[in-house]
Amino acid sequence: MIDKVLLGHGSGGALMADLLKNVVFAAFPDVQPTDGALADVPAGMRLVFTTDSFVVKPLFFPGGDIGRLAVNGTVNDLAMMGAEPALISCGLIIEEGFALDDLRWICASMSRAAMEAGARIVTGDTKVVGHGEADSIFINTSGIGYAQPVYGFSPDRVKAGDVIIVNGGLGEHGIAVMAGRLGVSFAPELPSDSAPLWPQVKALLGAGIVPGVMRDITRGGLGSVAAELAAGLPLDYHLREACLPVDARVAKACDIWGFDPLYVASEGRFLLSVGPAQVEETLRLLGPAAASIGEVSAGTGRVFLHTTVGGVRPVRPLPGEMLPRIC
Amino acid sequence: MIDKVLLGHGSGGALMADLLKNVVFAAFPDVQPTDGALADVPAGMRLVFTTDSFVVKPLFFPGGDIGRLAVNGTVNDLAMMGAEPALISCGLIIEEGFALDDLRWICASMSRAAMEAGARIVTGDTKVVGHGEADSIFINTSGIGYAQPVYGFSPDRVKAGDVIIVNGGLGEHGIAVMAGRLGVSFAPELPSDSAPLWPQVKALLGAGIVPGVMRDITRGGLGSVAAELAAGLPLDYHLREACLPVDARVAKACDIWGFDPLYVASEGRFLLSVGPAQVEETLRLLGPAAASIGEVSAGTGRVFLHTTVGGVRPVRPLPGEMLPRIC
Repeated sequence: MIDKVLLGHGSGGALMADLLKNVVFAAFPDVQPTDGALADVPAGMRLVFTTDSFVVKPLFFPGGDIGRLAVNGTVNDLAMMGAEPALISCGLIIEEGFALDDLRWICASMSRAAMEAGARIVTGDTKVVGHGEADSIFINTSGIGYAQPVYGFSPDRVKAGDVIIVNGGLGEHGIAVMAGRLGVSFAPELPSDSAPLWPQVKALLGAGIVPGVMRDITRGGLGSVAAELAAGLPLDYHLREACLPVDARVAKACDIWGFDPLYVASEGRFLLSVGPAQVEETLRLLGPAAASIGEVSAGTGRVFLHTTVGGVRPVRPLPGEMLPRIC
Repeated sequence: MIDKVLLGHGSGGALMADLLKNVVFAAFPDVQPTDGALADVPAGMRLVFTTDSFVVKPLFFPGGDIGRLAVNGTVNDLAMMGAEPALISCGLIIEEGFALDDLRWICASMSRAAMEAGARIVTGDTKVVGHGEADSIFINTSGIGYAQPVYGFSPDRVKAGDVIIVNGGLGEHGIAVMAGRLGVSFAPELPSDSAPLWPQVKALLGAGIVPGVMRDITRGGLGSVAAELAAGLPLDYHLREACLPVDARVAKACDIWGFDPLYVASEGRFLLSVGPAQVEETLRLLGPAAASIGEVSAGTGRVFLHTTVGGVRPVRPLPGEMLPRIC
């Protein structure tokens, strides 16, 4: 019995047909054996299109796996554009010798994550490369979402006086992956925050709250995201260290490993800006983990961290990589 | 000066911003630095969604490169569904140390190929993995096309009596890549057949020719594609060896390397079935390289090759891989 992926599984021949039938189509009932998927666009909707590749290491970590991450990542890119996630594609690049059981697990995980987000995996592609030519498995997900015609979030819609909110604790995904990679664990366990953001965004938009900007906090963490949003605009972002939601385990791990939680990635968190009058309602809709973490003033495109001891330091994007391959 | 891709180029930080600005956005002017691309769907159109990853080796070969292949592959999946290619995504997974000049070349090649096909590259993602964790570069392209509501090609729309046509010589892509890999060359050079198929499909549909099925001939070659199309249907496909368009260089290379041209991949060829009354017009529209290569009869889902010496042999999908990593 074959229990590993062979080069021939990527061939377009009979072995590949077996793999598709027994693994891929079994997990993704909406994928047809055609060159693509056909769909009707709901009347009055605009389309949002996004893509993301995932190379996380290890593949399985507390609170998730590469499959769940791959679906949520693309779902969240759509949600940040104000679009309801609808159709997802799955592009697999697999190293020869990869365990078929792990592949089944990952596909099942993708299928569950899509269902949770209200999206369907409708088209896919599978390639196999030789042993040593890839590190186990890489996954690309692309996504199509449908946005209301009223759509329009953009860094330049943020106004002086707007309040900055995040929907939950920072850096939990990055630290969970790092712990998985190093084989250490926390008590109680610290799960990745990987989650679909559309339900929260839908609740906000449904309540008539239209953020100036929304951005998921992934690679580079809050610090890089804020720096990117402020850059080039006549605005400064002010972050209040005392208000940043950082789990005690994340804080401790950062102390020990020498990371700054401001730059550690999340995969189920986002930053948004709202007018002062909408802060209370926004926090209520986002739930108890959300926090108001600062505000925007007129300025010159800078980000400042107002520290707990009363200092002010500039927040700049990291030049390079603090935690490689966390997504 | 940095002339290679560093791990930090995939970080979400300042190095990544540089890479995006100087390489990716420079090549793809339609890509915005947001989480996705927004588009209006033309009224009355249905959407087709497809994805494909490319791991070809070598990256550059006679007549093309991985970038051109990646765009044409997705354009062709859309064309085979009768959809006009509109929006393309570009997901890059790059090995640390990859030459920035090669990346620039590949992105420029993608941009040109998209333009040739009338499509736009509108969204992207870039990941970097460590040295030895991937083989130079892998590219995912996903695509959205717009199909007329009259759409509907499917293997079960093929009828007994239909004629099978291909639009050009078989196996030229596979042999060109193999020659590139082995460092051998032909005189005159044999270029890959990689090309966008939409112009030919558009011409057919515009002339009122609606094929029963269209399928691009990629991995597994004509033999695997025909076997897949016939499987499970009350039809047999009959291929006439004497009618198969095989370039003399492809035939000779297959002889020497032990390949069967029936199973060597193309990247700009497709098989289609039309009723006997439409054969002449179809061949005229597809141009002088096209050929009528056989016909369909009532049967039991089999494919037969009628050989030049008067024999008949069954054509089955290959179990595994004859030429790995040709796309």
